[in-house]
Amino acid sequence: MSLPSHNPYFKVGGKDIWSLINETAAAAEQESGRKMVNLGQGFFSYSPPDFAINAAKKALDVPANNQYAPARGRPSLVQAIIDTYSPVYGRQLTKDEVLVTTGANEGMLSCFFGFIAPGDEVIVFEPFFDQYISNIEMPGGKVKYVQLHPPADFATRTVTGDDWSIDWSELEAAITPKTKMIVLNSPHNPIGKVFNKQELLRIGELAVKHNFLILSDEVYENLYYGDFTRVALLSPEIGRRTLTVGSAGKSFAATGWRVGWVIGDKETVQYCALAHTRICFSTPNVMQEATAQALQLARTNGYYEQTRKEYINKYRIFTAVFDELGLPYTVADGGYFLLVNLKKVEIPKEVEFPQEIAHKPRDFKLAFWLIKQFGVVSIPPSEFYLPQNAHVIEDCLRFAVCKDDFVLEEAVQRLRLLKQYIK
Amino acid sequence: MSLPSHNPYFKVGGKDIWSLINETAAAAEQESGRKMVNLGQGFFSYSPPDFAINAAKKALDVPANNQYAPARGRPSLVQAIIDTYSPVYGRQLTKDEVLVTTGANEGMLSCFFGFIAPGDEVIVFEPFFDQYISNIEMPGGKVKYVQLHPPADFATRTVTGDDWSIDWSELEAAITPKTKMIVLNSPHNPIGKVFNKQELLRIGELAVKHNFLILSDEVYENLYYGDFTRVALLSPEIGRRTLTVGSAGKSFAATGWRVGWVIGDKETVQYCALAHTRICFSTPNVMQEATAQALQLARTNGYYEQTRKEYINKYRIFTAVFDELGLPYTVADGGYFLLVNLKKVEIPKEVEFPQEIAHKPRDFKLAFWLIKQFGVVSIPPSEFYLPQNAHVIEDCLRFAVCKDDFVLEEAVQRLRLLKQYIK
Repeated sequence: MSLPSHNPYFKVGGKDIWSLINETAAAAEQESGRKMVNLGQGFFSYSPPDFAINAAKKALDVPANNQYAPARGRPSLVQAIIDTYSPVYGRQLTKDEVLVTTGANEGMLSCFFGFIAPGDEVIVFEPFFDQYISNIEMPGGKVKYVQLHPPADFATRTVTGDDWSIDWSELEAAITPKTKMIVLNSPHNPIGKVFNKQELLRIGELAVKHNFLILSDEVYENLYYGDFTRVALLSPEIGRRTLTVGSAGKSFAATGWRVGWVIGDKETVQYCALAHTRICFSTPNVMQEATAQALQLARTNGYYEQTRKEYINKYRIFTAVFDELGLPYTVADGGYFLLVNLKKVEIPKEVEFPQEIAHKPRDFKLAFWLIKQFGVVSIPPSEFYLPQNAHVIEDCLRFAVCKDDFVLEEAVQRLRLLKQYIK
Repeated sequence: MSLPSHNPYFKVGGKDIWSLINETAAAAEQESGRKMVNLGQGFFSYSPPDFAINAAKKALDVPANNQYAPARGRPSLVQAIIDTYSPVYGRQLTKDEVLVTTGANEGMLSCFFGFIAPGDEVIVFEPFFDQYISNIEMPGGKVKYVQLHPPADFATRTVTGDDWSIDWSELEAAITPKTKMIVLNSPHNPIGKVFNKQELLRIGELAVKHNFLILSDEVYENLYYGDFTRVALLSPEIGRRTLTVGSAGKSFAATGWRVGWVIGDKETVQYCALAHTRICFSTPNVMQEATAQALQLARTNGYYEQTRKEYINKYRIFTAVFDELGLPYTVADGGYFLLVNLKKVEIPKEVEFPQEIAHKPRDFKLAFWLIKQFGVVSIPPSEFYLPQNAHVIEDCLRFAVCKDDFVLEEAVQRLRLLKQYIK
């Protein structure tokens, strides 16, 4: 007798991108005996700062810290978030405006569940982080896709985030009376684009005019290398409609801690909080206390400035090889990814692809070949596109630079060998 | 201009029970200057065992432990779960049968999302843990309630969990072609009932006959004081249809760690895993490693046996006062709650109730008065009932005994003063 049927929304089948790439890399490592240089998934190759680790250890010693935290967040962390963002917002935030979540991912899911009823529409820019889509669809939302257009010549010249542009008529055409929300991600994964003030203002004005919310995924907020504009601060009316999501994982190299937060108008945050309470009830208490102490220390110890300096250097190390090879990329204005265009690279004809790669866009083949041939792991960015738009990006690969410098230097050594395959 | 409308499913308004009771207790503490004895929410007043705390501290020192864990669980924890349950199941479990989740709560939500499509029905016994209801309704499920009936005379004599009975014709009447799942909770919160083998077998046979799943919330699995039967083990056909949920929080006094797990047939667990990946992506890595080590150590160091002994003693300490007062209760066969019937207790006429309590069932008034008059916090169990059935339980209060012995002894001292209010 067959088992009861599953929710048809969740389909077993095609492996998710992370499993596919990780398993391919692991198999290649075993086969070749050569250790992979993993610039695939955006986890850090190094530890959170000592002050954060020590805070976590200290927190473990207090009995109450090992029990449920309040659903909206441990008071010390809520306070640390208020203390961190009040100077940025230019006014004293209140605890009603803050919600602690179990990672930024669950924070966004809470925002979607708090506002999306079946049939509501949410505008998402393509390329998009894949979790957004299912997180919008789980409460019954419908995604309306709007492209961020790369410049026509991005296969032949290195471009900037500003060169990736919004077609405003496309965006306006996507707005309907059912539009409940638009999702922004700045700094952007995988482009590295930091949305500029003019773009954010125009989006914000549309949100006010058509009365929809802005869900701003700003998890890379401390990793910007030029200007960084927060959409929530552009005007009071825009601010009221904006929910901003932050992440301890991204800010403190602690993606495994699963601590994030949502900041917004108390009238909106309360609904995110109701949803969060039902999704996760509360967030790991020890990790919250560690984050609270890390946030408080980082306000004055120069940690963010130091990290930005280090990342500028990481990009300097890593982009050198592409400059040398004449392979163009998008200069990252923020975040920790580099999107490189490998249109000029020719994969040798004799390379054989396994079944699960063979029918995929070219970026999957590039990623597979880089793993096998050079021992370098990257992510095929067509996963951030609808299938019908994969061709836009299929010559590109996304590399994560949130790794120790020596890892990046090893990657440079290996990628230098691409030279003989360039047309 | 008003803000965009929220998801109508999430309503602001009546405070949730936990906030209402905690805030009432905090206000009473401030007013009276007397520290409350808090037997309300089921958090522990003491720390997880040293071996678990030390494992967490050690785990923090490894860089990779602070980064994303695999979505289905850290390998060491998956292995520890396999090693813990294989002897119980009498066969070697495989990693496909295990999913690590961000607390048992998110584990259950993942099971619901993995199987419930809009319109599917889920049978839940009343009284129920409140999270079940919204977690079923979020993916669009419909709850069908079936009562666990207390014996008619439970206001006048101390009863057992077995005395709380299922009306089998009511249960069968609740089954329809849309029934996708039944939720069990054994040991049961708030009754303390451990479902006996006959009951579970009959439920299991219905699940096989009508082809629905059993979601068995067994988070109190290590706290049983007589027999404990696992529904998953009753027959292969029942086992295939059963998803069993466990909790590090309940097993290691670490409710704030948010580590839980689901065990079941690999064909079913894969859908829970797909949902979990979208809900939380992965579970805090350090907490997983700490749980892995704790599970491995607890297999041989007598921890569970010792804990059961301690809990038998906690119940002995705490039930003494009710025996002395002649207030009947349900003997807990498992878990850490005691459900006491206070029908004989008369609240003095002059007691004034705040607005948010005044219109609630009598158990809220009893809980309020116990806080104000005796400084003892408990939970009104009508929150575990539909409003129209609150009368069944409105003379009862739920006390949590997962507290240090001296806390329970202080509670006994204070509750002794109930004597003068007994009719």
